[in-house]
Amino acid sequence: MTSAYQQLCERFRMLHRFGHLAAICHWDQATMMPSGSNEARSQALAELALLEHRQLTAPEMDDWLSLAAEEPLDLSQHANLREMKRAWNRAAALPDRLVEAQSLAGARCEHAWREQRRQNDWSGFLPNLREVVRLSREEASVRGEHQGCGRYDSLLDLYEPGMTSHKLDALFGDITTWLPELCQQVVERQAAEPYVLSNGRFATEAQRQLGLKVMSKLGFDFDRGRLDVSVHPFCGGVPEDVRITTRYTDDDFTGSLMGVIHETGHGCYEQNLPAEWLGLPAGEARSMAVHESQSLLFEMQLARHPAFLHWLSPLLVEAFGTGHQAYLDGDNLCRLFTRVQPGLIRVDADEVTYPFHIILRYEIERRLIEGELEVDDIPELWTQKMETWLGISTAGNYRDGCMQDIHWTDGGFGYFPTYTLGALYAAQLFGALKRDLPDLDECLREGDFMPLTTWLRERVWRHGCLLETGELLQQATGEPLNPDWFRRHLERRYLEV
Amino acid sequence: MTSAYQQLCERFRMLHRFGHLAAICHWDQATMMPSGSNEARSQALAELALLEHRQLTAPEMDDWLSLAAEEPLDLSQHANLREMKRAWNRAAALPDRLVEAQSLAGARCEHAWREQRRQNDWSGFLPNLREVVRLSREEASVRGEHQGCGRYDSLLDLYEPGMTSHKLDALFGDITTWLPELCQQVVERQAAEPYVLSNGRFATEAQRQLGLKVMSKLGFDFDRGRLDVSVHPFCGGVPEDVRITTRYTDDDFTGSLMGVIHETGHGCYEQNLPAEWLGLPAGEARSMAVHESQSLLFEMQLARHPAFLHWLSPLLVEAFGTGHQAYLDGDNLCRLFTRVQPGLIRVDADEVTYPFHIILRYEIERRLIEGELEVDDIPELWTQKMETWLGISTAGNYRDGCMQDIHWTDGGFGYFPTYTLGALYAAQLFGALKRDLPDLDECLREGDFMPLTTWLRERVWRHGCLLETGELLQQATGEPLNPDWFRRHLERRYLEV
Repeated sequence: MTSAYQQLCERFRMLHRFGHLAAICHWDQATMMPSGSNEARSQALAELALLEHRQLTAPEMDDWLSLAAEEPLDLSQHANLREMKRAWNRAAALPDRLVEAQSLAGARCEHAWREQRRQNDWSGFLPNLREVVRLSREEASVRGEHQGCGRYDSLLDLYEPGMTSHKLDALFGDITTWLPELCQQVVERQAAEPYVLSNGRFATEAQRQLGLKVMSKLGFDFDRGRLDVSVHPFCGGVPEDVRITTRYTDDDFTGSLMGVIHETGHGCYEQNLPAEWLGLPAGEARSMAVHESQSLLFEMQLARHPAFLHWLSPLLVEAFGTGHQAYLDGDNLCRLFTRVQPGLIRVDADEVTYPFHIILRYEIERRLIEGELEVDDIPELWTQKMETWLGISTAGNYRDGCMQDIHWTDGGFGYFPTYTLGALYAAQLFGALKRDLPDLDECLREGDFMPLTTWLRERVWRHGCLLETGELLQQATGEPLNPDWFRRHLERRYLEV
Repeated sequence: MTSAYQQLCERFRMLHRFGHLAAICHWDQATMMPSGSNEARSQALAELALLEHRQLTAPEMDDWLSLAAEEPLDLSQHANLREMKRAWNRAAALPDRLVEAQSLAGARCEHAWREQRRQNDWSGFLPNLREVVRLSREEASVRGEHQGCGRYDSLLDLYEPGMTSHKLDALFGDITTWLPELCQQVVERQAAEPYVLSNGRFATEAQRQLGLKVMSKLGFDFDRGRLDVSVHPFCGGVPEDVRITTRYTDDDFTGSLMGVIHETGHGCYEQNLPAEWLGLPAGEARSMAVHESQSLLFEMQLARHPAFLHWLSPLLVEAFGTGHQAYLDGDNLCRLFTRVQPGLIRVDADEVTYPFHIILRYEIERRLIEGELEVDDIPELWTQKMETWLGISTAGNYRDGCMQDIHWTDGGFGYFPTYTLGALYAAQLFGALKRDLPDLDECLREGDFMPLTTWLRERVWRHGCLLETGELLQQATGEPLNPDWFRRHLERRYLEV
């Protein structure tokens, strides 16, 4: 007789196969699809999403989950069942009516935002965002009750299971005690630092070849993945077929190269998830925050590391010609890739000022969801915090202020913290990795990334969802999440060199 | 209250949306996918195919189809219902057990064939093909009983509804009375004809740009379609997003160009199916044979037409440089693209000898399915017919004889006749088109294809499945299918110039 657990596994494997088709068609939509096909594609993907939702929340699932909990399972199977329940909870908690209302309100708000942002039209954006927030509050309330947790915490849990605003307050509170001063010191220190800029041209094909070469060196498996072009870079596809994208501009190669390295971090994580659990929840990436930690470990910890940049320098000269020699010099690259400059735009921020952008958004969205702040009052709080932390005025500049991100437009509250959590995890993991691999600097300088990726595979990638984030971090680094690693990383890189 | 007809429409629209995702993922598999992802992709596509089959044959479908037949429908809705029934019949006729056995036997036979063909290993191929034929006979028997028709006819009906072996015997019988002599005359006539060959190089990118330009001129809508590369060229995707492919070799541009024009015929048909019926069976292409008629009309009737080739000549010179001038001269192109040469391989055959390849296969596969011929006796009959019609010996050469095609390996019996039916339809349609458009030659010479595509859209494309093939042909050309059009076309092009 087939056990309930086995029936659950079969259902999730089916969902994984449908997810495969959806992921490839989403990738195609962003990279290949001609624009006139968008409507038909969106309808087709919505039909499949509906089917997946129905299969995940079908009446028998509830029974199977209860029955499976009584069946004899080993530790890994228990972890798998835990993640199945988590997926089912997420999908089953909300009434269909609310899901549909959110989808409509989100689509409307996001669509209008694209033009409203350009026009700096806060008052036009306001009614749409109010409706999105109203529905997200309802979602948070339903989810919170369902899980027996706070409202905002129930949204946080979607992106980083186990994370709470209580923990975030402590983490982010810690950061705000030392980061402003550190930031100030770095800016002063760098003010007099000489560096060479470039006004040269970097051929797209040379950039592409360079990106492919670096991906290869970092262990990306091209037998199960590709690099392509899209307007907004992402890592998509499935573990069996990882599709990462970038975009090129011929007056600057750094954006594309660092973007490719970032997405390669995501991609290597996906490609090295535990093969024996593929297609099941335990075989998936741990969380959005852990995913971001892998991309940031590649992009920030590794790719801005002096040893890495000194290894990279001759490759760049080879790719772009000796005309750029001074610009592409290893020491110059180190200075270029660690410039700190407070600015308005989150996606353009360096790793020192980036946390301010996130903490600001966290403080606003938590209060919004908890009903302690109204949408109308966002700009005032935004302006005040930007002034306090980055010394920049955004008064009246909604476009580059609270209207700059897409996340809130379709109700993605709870997502922003994963960026800075990812940076904290990345710093802690890289710190432990350096401790475990005393020769790391030499390896990086020689372009030997095998020790690093082997460590990551062993400590992070191969665990999929078998461990919770806390356990993962504890096992990999020997201690629970500790923001000191991030602080020490910034101090060493930006103040002690 | 929702009528049964409306419920059927909703079900078929859903199937269309799933079909969209499957089509794009199939395209991706052939053009983009890294090889290591094949297993996962195949599983994902099989899962969706199973779902589609279940949705199409679900118990309620039978009821809805019966109820809808009693509901008040207009003529077009009746045609749509007829096509729904046809699709349902095709899917519901076979027991699951048989479908699965065929799928397994077909996959095994096809997989082994790839190597066996290379090795000329008929005796290794034999047991696999025997099993495929045994199951196809069973399929034909079940389908024939279900539809109240002959066994082979029930398979023919899958690819060209309404076609029967009785009709085919008459059509192909007619062709065999005059084509051998015509072929003989052409070969003799061309023996002394001078023409220039090329041993130059044709850059892939230049070929690609040329293909895109010709597609555009022929009316392919790049806002809802693409051109890419695959090992085996095809036209895939969905009407809302048509994906055609080609392959390039740098020592010859003609294969790719003519292939692109062929697939553009398929693609334009798809893109111009009736928009108001999109997603429903009445909005689909009429049949495999009608589809092939559109690609052959583009590739054979149009693109080998002297006026077209004279228009094309300067474009080729522009694309590939003046070094190829003599080769790319209009008159030389006319001679090159109408060379007739009896040969072993169907896919390399010219339009004069091609029907022999098809009639040969038809005569064998019909007898196989009807149980009048055994698999073991195929080579003998093959050799005998090739000798009779093309004067070529294939004795012992299975690789380039009865093992050359993929069609039989997975049970695609009944498909081959659509190639020559397509050629007959194309000749008749092009004949009627020339009669209706007296200025056609001048238009073609000037690269003005609008009158031609407007005629095709009006007479063929926009009808989707609203008409049966016979009605379509009658309305478009004023008479039922008549192979004289094909004969006259060959005589004019090959004997009267």
